[in-house]
Amino acid sequence: MSVAQFAALWAEIAPIGRAESGGYLRYALTEPELALRDWFRAHAAARDLEVTEDGNGNLFAWWGEPWGSGAVLTGSHFDSVPHGGGYDGPLGIVSAFLAVDRLRADGYAPGRPLGIAAFVEEEGGRFGLPCLGSRLLTGAVDPEKAAALTDRDGVSFGEALGATPSGARPDLVGRVSALVELHIEQGRALDVPVGVASAIWPHGRWRFDFTGRGDHAGTTLMADRRDPMLTFAYTVLAANKEARLSGAHATMARVQVEPNATNAIPARVRGWLDARAAEESTLDGVVDAIVKRAHDRAGRDGTEVGVTAESVTAQVAFDTALAERIAGLLGGAPILPTGAGHDAGVFSAHVPTAMLFVRNPTGVSHSPAEHAPDEDCAAGVEALAKVLEALT
Amino acid sequence: MSVAQFAALWAEIAPIGRAESGGYLRYALTEPELALRDWFRAHAAARDLEVTEDGNGNLFAWWGEPWGSGAVLTGSHFDSVPHGGGYDGPLGIVSAFLAVDRLRADGYAPGRPLGIAAFVEEEGGRFGLPCLGSRLLTGAVDPEKAAALTDRDGVSFGEALGATPSGARPDLVGRVSALVELHIEQGRALDVPVGVASAIWPHGRWRFDFTGRGDHAGTTLMADRRDPMLTFAYTVLAANKEARLSGAHATMARVQVEPNATNAIPARVRGWLDARAAEESTLDGVVDAIVKRAHDRAGRDGTEVGVTAESVTAQVAFDTALAERIAGLLGGAPILPTGAGHDAGVFSAHVPTAMLFVRNPTGVSHSPAEHAPDEDCAAGVEALAKVLEALT
Repeated sequence: MSVAQFAALWAEIAPIGRAESGGYLRYALTEPELALRDWFRAHAAARDLEVTEDGNGNLFAWWGEPWGSGAVLTGSHFDSVPHGGGYDGPLGIVSAFLAVDRLRADGYAPGRPLGIAAFVEEEGGRFGLPCLGSRLLTGAVDPEKAAALTDRDGVSFGEALGATPSGARPDLVGRVSALVELHIEQGRALDVPVGVASAIWPHGRWRFDFTGRGDHAGTTLMADRRDPMLTFAYTVLAANKEARLSGAHATMARVQVEPNATNAIPARVRGWLDARAAEESTLDGVVDAIVKRAHDRAGRDGTEVGVTAESVTAQVAFDTALAERIAGLLGGAPILPTGAGHDAGVFSAHVPTAMLFVRNPTGVSHSPAEHAPDEDCAAGVEALAKVLEALT
Repeated sequence: MSVAQFAALWAEIAPIGRAESGGYLRYALTEPELALRDWFRAHAAARDLEVTEDGNGNLFAWWGEPWGSGAVLTGSHFDSVPHGGGYDGPLGIVSAFLAVDRLRADGYAPGRPLGIAAFVEEEGGRFGLPCLGSRLLTGAVDPEKAAALTDRDGVSFGEALGATPSGARPDLVGRVSALVELHIEQGRALDVPVGVASAIWPHGRWRFDFTGRGDHAGTTLMADRRDPMLTFAYTVLAANKEARLSGAHATMARVQVEPNATNAIPARVRGWLDARAAEESTLDGVVDAIVKRAHDRAGRDGTEVGVTAESVTAQVAFDTALAERIAGLLGGAPILPTGAGHDAGVFSAHVPTAMLFVRNPTGVSHSPAEHAPDEDCAAGVEALAKVLEALT
């Protein structure tokens, strides 16, 4: 596996869905993501890998019998956050095809089926629920509920998919012996090219609905206002402060304002909190503190606040024995936790699951500036090939 | 002029451009505002008033010779802020037609031409510059610059108008002897049905561009962040505090976030400050203090902030003698200032200008809840008729 081989395959998808920002707009089941799926099918066909769909929007390219006994899954997702980087997701799929090439070049013939997955809507960037495809396949979300999720234009996931998702595969646990997802590391936590995941922090999304009274920004006395933007702004700062105090991560990065006009005090401001922590008790504590401070401030602003937990994921501890075995295979690769959610985290509740991380020198992710060096990516392919060889 | 006559004419336009919120989406030169212009033409025709356009998007219905010597202008605007009330603007136009009916019912024949105006883009809700039509007609904005202003979809004012605006009317000052705009009051400042304006507070809009570094909300260490949402939030609260301390009004009610995703620290947040005060020195002081605090906070957040004054309007003092004459005509109506900008404010730099205010019991404006009782609106028509009779 040469660096040039990685660079050549990577270059094929680099232009797809790239915005002027340099970041990507690869929302699930939109034109760029569909183009990436076509690319996936073409590369599967070129390698004589049978492609199956699971009725949930997830694609699989099989070396060996689809869903055959003891199958090992690898792969990742194509979709991006808005103006996100190109590595988060696609690196795991590109690396999987190259790992197959690497193993075949060695004349290796797997004893178990190997499936390369492209999971749908991992980021939740279009329909709001992260890891939607893997949640459906493992039965972690109801297919009817998933079908009803809508994007910002009101299009439902069911409409985008063309059907109600088929939901959990009953024989998943019996058939799949392991899942290994390769992913770019996202926290400046790795100082060698490849590491192994230990755990995913508990994390979640909470929607804050701040309600006040729409009014004229020029004429309304300051004392007469009930301005929900003030309560939102206070909550943004409170979330940051509470996270710093407790060693958690908390971010309010998305906001919707009605009417969002310069000269009109808003009637409503909706903001989303993303919070994560190493321990569930820490996460609960920081979210409770932020909610309490939002309510206190609402009392002073004459506004109201409602909080809805949109998705909360408990701590994921990956299979410890598998992680240690993989670290050993890779000559003592470091084992480290992450604050980011992944499809592998969803699977870890059902089958032995592991993750490989590829070094990210700046730690920047979910940004056009996300980058991993070609040399490290090639090392990731080598590591993935070694692991898949051992598992199949 | 009966209350029923007012209510009947008002009911004709009430459904046009009304959103589910109960508020209005009557952006300049969009379908609802064009429908209101058709309504304007139909009512002018029914009254045998000749309609002229001024090449800037402003419409006029003339009782007498268009732009004839000593012409008196009245009227207001049709466009709304997003989800604004129905009174802000249209009340002045509907009242003008009814005032003509009232004067004709008395057999009055004006000695000077009377023009009912419908000014374009008073709110700046579509193209961002308030009083765009009156600014063009009086030469307060360059036609090429106005043509290049774009809405949120990238459509320019020139494209929406179908031409570069024709700009200032050179003989405006020589031809127009007075302008009287009737408008709903917007600050709970009137306890009788009709009042007269003394002045408009100096006011303006400033755009704050907060720049940081886009990154992953889950994995980025709190200490490593350069999150412009924090600087924005701090500035929102600083604007409120500084306004309260100085007796000014300051509001940050509009925001744009890139990428505006729950799990991505923003790269950029753009917020708009609306600030107004009774004195220019107070306004300057409060804006300077907010800008300074934004910069101080940006230093702590590792972000950058750029501030652009998008429009700043000096204090408008309406013609004192005219205001006193009108107050006398109306039996001692109160004379009061306002924090809201108006087309009349733009004209006041060029021709004797006055405003009538109709009582707003709650003071709520720029909101679906904006309301004036039919009885007060009918009293407004009576007052306007009396004033126009005296001036023509």
